[in-house]
Amino acid sequence: MIDTNALQTYSLFGGVLPEQIEKMRPFFGYFQYQAGDTPMIEGAPNDKIFFITSGRVEISKHGIPIAEVAEGETFGEMELIDVMPSIATVTALEPLEVVTISNAALYKISKSEPKAFALMIMNLARDLSRRLRRMDELAAK
Amino acid sequence: MIDTNALQTYSLFGGVLPEQIEKMRPFFGYFQYQAGDTPMIEGAPNDKIFFITSGRVEISKHGIPIAEVAEGETFGEMELIDVMPSIATVTALEPLEVVTISNAALYKISKSEPKAFALMIMNLARDLSRRLRRMDELAAK
Repeated sequence: MIDTNALQTYSLFGGVLPEQIEKMRPFFGYFQYQAGDTPMIEGAPNDKIFFITSGRVEISKHGIPIAEVAEGETFGEMELIDVMPSIATVTALEPLEVVTISNAALYKISKSEPKAFALMIMNLARDLSRRLRRMDELAAK
Repeated sequence: MIDTNALQTYSLFGGVLPEQIEKMRPFFGYFQYQAGDTPMIEGAPNDKIFFITSGRVEISKHGIPIAEVAEGETFGEMELIDVMPSIATVTALEPLEVVTISNAALYKISKSEPKAFALMIMNLARDLSRRLRRMDELAAK
């Protein structure tokens, strides 16, 4: 079940009104995974952002765990806007529920909710910019 | 002088129609610098993207040159969407002409040209995503 009120708290929806999110509901996907499932595999194509609504995942690269991400957080932002091989593997550490937006769904949102779309892309770009800064700071250490 | 046809070739304007760029003209800035001038200083506030329309600059961090960028390329993308201290210093290597879009101008564009705005932000997010991938590949080596 997709709880649009809960989605409002994710950074991608910053500034987007609850009624706008509600209108996007037909464009969302909803998936459940078991512990050990891999919704994203490094090097394999992915075209979705995943909003974790319940559960916890491990992010790994080259088989090495690099982070854990949980309810209230997202993964797949980069693949959403730039359909390319996934940058990391994501493994469910426990039963996992996610809401997704695919690249094709995002395109439909851009047509039906252009204002909300612009806000979402702006939020996404800000998030990517912050990550670049963080990597940059790490690289400088 | 701002040549809107030339601007169309920059990745930020990918998919934006020439007539839409023409309508944005009042929101653009235009600056000229001399060799040795520093349009962007690491750690100092910046709120603009710079389109180099003539000339060449050096990008440096902590006083160390890391790249050169020339006509047809941009700098300041990250600062445009996330007004924060500049991530690097940019020094003109020769007489430099730039067209700029400030954060405030971008806001005006979002109001007057929402479709073009959405495309521009999408292009920007893609560019940041590619840079993240590149840094990520370098970090993995």
